[in-house]
Amino acid sequence: MASKAEVGFIGLGAMGFGMATHLVKQGYAVDGFDVYPPILERFTAQGGKAATTPADAARGKKYLVVMVANSIQTQSALIDGDNAAVPALEKDAVVLLCSTVACGYVQKLEKQLVEIGRSDVLLIDAPVSGGVIRAGDGTLSIMAGATEEAFARGKFLLQEMADPAKLYIGAGGIGAGSNLKMVHQVLAAAHILAASEGLGFAKQLGLDLGWASKQILESDTEAFMMSNRLPRILAAADRSLSGPVASAVTIILKDNGIITSEAIRHGFATPMSSTAEQVYYDALGRGLGAVDDGVMIQLYDEGKGKVGNLLASTVANTDEEKLQLVKGLLRGIYLCSAAETLALGQFLGMDLDQVYDLCASAAGGSAVFRDVGPAMIKVLKGERPDGDEVGLRVVADELQAAVLEAQRLKMPLWLGAQANTLVRLALNHAPKTVEKPPRALLTKVWSA
Amino acid sequence: MASKAEVGFIGLGAMGFGMATHLVKQGYAVDGFDVYPPILERFTAQGGKAATTPADAARGKKYLVVMVANSIQTQSALIDGDNAAVPALEKDAVVLLCSTVACGYVQKLEKQLVEIGRSDVLLIDAPVSGGVIRAGDGTLSIMAGATEEAFARGKFLLQEMADPAKLYIGAGGIGAGSNLKMVHQVLAAAHILAASEGLGFAKQLGLDLGWASKQILESDTEAFMMSNRLPRILAAADRSLSGPVASAVTIILKDNGIITSEAIRHGFATPMSSTAEQVYYDALGRGLGAVDDGVMIQLYDEGKGKVGNLLASTVANTDEEKLQLVKGLLRGIYLCSAAETLALGQFLGMDLDQVYDLCASAAGGSAVFRDVGPAMIKVLKGERPDGDEVGLRVVADELQAAVLEAQRLKMPLWLGAQANTLVRLALNHAPKTVEKPPRALLTKVWSA
Repeated sequence: MASKAEVGFIGLGAMGFGMATHLVKQGYAVDGFDVYPPILERFTAQGGKAATTPADAARGKKYLVVMVANSIQTQSALIDGDNAAVPALEKDAVVLLCSTVACGYVQKLEKQLVEIGRSDVLLIDAPVSGGVIRAGDGTLSIMAGATEEAFARGKFLLQEMADPAKLYIGAGGIGAGSNLKMVHQVLAAAHILAASEGLGFAKQLGLDLGWASKQILESDTEAFMMSNRLPRILAAADRSLSGPVASAVTIILKDNGIITSEAIRHGFATPMSSTAEQVYYDALGRGLGAVDDGVMIQLYDEGKGKVGNLLASTVANTDEEKLQLVKGLLRGIYLCSAAETLALGQFLGMDLDQVYDLCASAAGGSAVFRDVGPAMIKVLKGERPDGDEVGLRVVADELQAAVLEAQRLKMPLWLGAQANTLVRLALNHAPKTVEKPPRALLTKVWSA
Repeated sequence: MASKAEVGFIGLGAMGFGMATHLVKQGYAVDGFDVYPPILERFTAQGGKAATTPADAARGKKYLVVMVANSIQTQSALIDGDNAAVPALEKDAVVLLCSTVACGYVQKLEKQLVEIGRSDVLLIDAPVSGGVIRAGDGTLSIMAGATEEAFARGKFLLQEMADPAKLYIGAGGIGAGSNLKMVHQVLAAAHILAASEGLGFAKQLGLDLGWASKQILESDTEAFMMSNRLPRILAAADRSLSGPVASAVTIILKDNGIITSEAIRHGFATPMSSTAEQVYYDALGRGLGAVDDGVMIQLYDEGKGKVGNLLASTVANTDEEKLQLVKGLLRGIYLCSAAETLALGQFLGMDLDQVYDLCASAAGGSAVFRDVGPAMIKVLKGERPDGDEVGLRVVADELQAAVLEAQRLKMPLWLGAQANTLVRLALNHAPKTVEKPPRALLTKVWSA
């Protein structure tokens, strides 16, 4: 069959390899570069071509996809490094930056193209989400921002790699894709830790984690990240985590750092993301950075049986009562991360319906987000939310019960304690006369 | 000389031993009990009398002082244990409970005296502060609450043990002493951790800790707890912490737990105390509970040199610039813990001028608290604070700089990140038109 366009591809890690080989299967001539030579061998075995430098991959190409780990690698591969790619690109080439970077960085990169005399190169800010399988299937979620002209020329490549229903074009040009990814990662970063916090709490309560996780995932405490991380969390809890790393602590920590540093740049508070970040740094300091992020459960369960006598009295005597404590903890955390995500999106002037649509069905999704998100968007838009059968006071009660039980067990609940603080502060904003303030009012912590 | 009253004394730990032997020196006949027999031998060598059970210490006494570690030990010694003290007391005896317990507990204890038929026994809620030396000198800070009748009978004993200027009688009867101690401990618990966080940050920045701590303590970042803990923190940073434990992690964790559990009981948010508590639990889970609390610095510096490449660019190149980052971090933390202390005192209906007086000169004292406390009290009372040459935006800038630098160093700043969140939320409440919102407005996070 007639070959489609030639594409340069930089960064053949787990995600990049899947994306590049998918393009090969679709008939593109893909010239791939990676710093790790064995990957290049595997790539040529799949029909790709191996480049020896970023410039080599880019030389003469109209299209270049970048899927490296972070902005430092991006900067080196495109502009600053020996044999950088941009100078080697064909005139009027399109660069798809699919790495997760800060909005501030990709906007700076656009300016640098002009500064180095390559204003002809069109940049598309296009971070992805969805995991290795969807990368190889060409059904990723892609969050993109660019000029009309850049989309006109490069959108077909985004469409090759994305699920048609999950290609989100953000308003505002370069940076809009990164911002969409960033607000989604507020959920992702908190929920990865929440899965370990919830199951670490369950373990300290003496619950069977197989049973507890099944109950959690088949109810209103369902969340993609717990479901996705579950096998590795269970292995980490048993101290039998082994095999290839699906996603290392450093990966989510990097995304988390983008959230908090961008928030600081804007003077916006991100209590849940900031808390999660400190715990990830805690793991990093212990030497766990390169370990699968399921290992985070060990920061919660390590004291079990070693922290001295516990008070005998507890509110939870049966497994069902203990499970309710864990589920209450998770509901509170998911509610707070939902509010932080949407409040940040609102603060950045994003289309909240698009944010909701993206987040509800991606890796940050949870039953709580899908349930309460629409009402939170109403509150953020200044509208009255619908009545709420649950109400914020129930969330406060559940979080308090969990935090008190964790005190009894002498264990940390970093996210739960922070969620308890936020719900309490939000209740300060609810008139005492309102018997059942809706959960969506939690967003008032930010917008008051 | 004629003997003064006979006094029973339960709990001859570091503080209790000093207090009991001081009473002996003042001419009291003191019958002391402790679960650790060698202490009793030391006590008799100082002129005390050794009791074999709590009941033995209390038998026939009009006065009983209790200085055990917590409410569980108190309950056992006074009411529930074999040979409990209360049934053995003389009619109309006075019990001084000097242990640090929750207000809720000591109020329950008062009711229990009635329930077991000893409504004749008068209880004084009288936790202390000040350390071992002041315990032995009879110059402690004592925070007391009781009925008029109980004070009329037992105040002389408080006066024997307290510095005359530091005997604080709280309004409201039983529980008022514990509440005074509790709001003070908001500062103490945060500042013990802040000392490790600040110096851990300094160490990661490459500063000489001897030099840095001197600069910190001789300026507007002075705080009692850093000064008090310094030798042990420096030893812990060098991994040479040894010798007797001055105050174990479990001690401050217990006091911290009183704050957070009482706050939960009242539905009040304690963001700084809740954050500190999680970090103390982290240390507990690592097996550091019985170690001197100076060891907390190791949770901050353990990753140094082990977390992979750091970004080269930093805002702080000279030692002086690095020191300013550390001092900015500490100023922000101290400001937030001051606001939390006073907001909690206000919420509990306490006399804020008394709280200020107590805290300014006790173990929770800091230059920042003394500087900003009066203006915060004005805000909490609904008055306009005086102008503030510093302003909240400067605090926000300093905290942001510290948090961003910690991201570069890939280390946690638990309290700093939380302080950054709180300052940002407070600025939401300040009209954008106000150029320099005073730092005292930080209390609006709670009272809005």
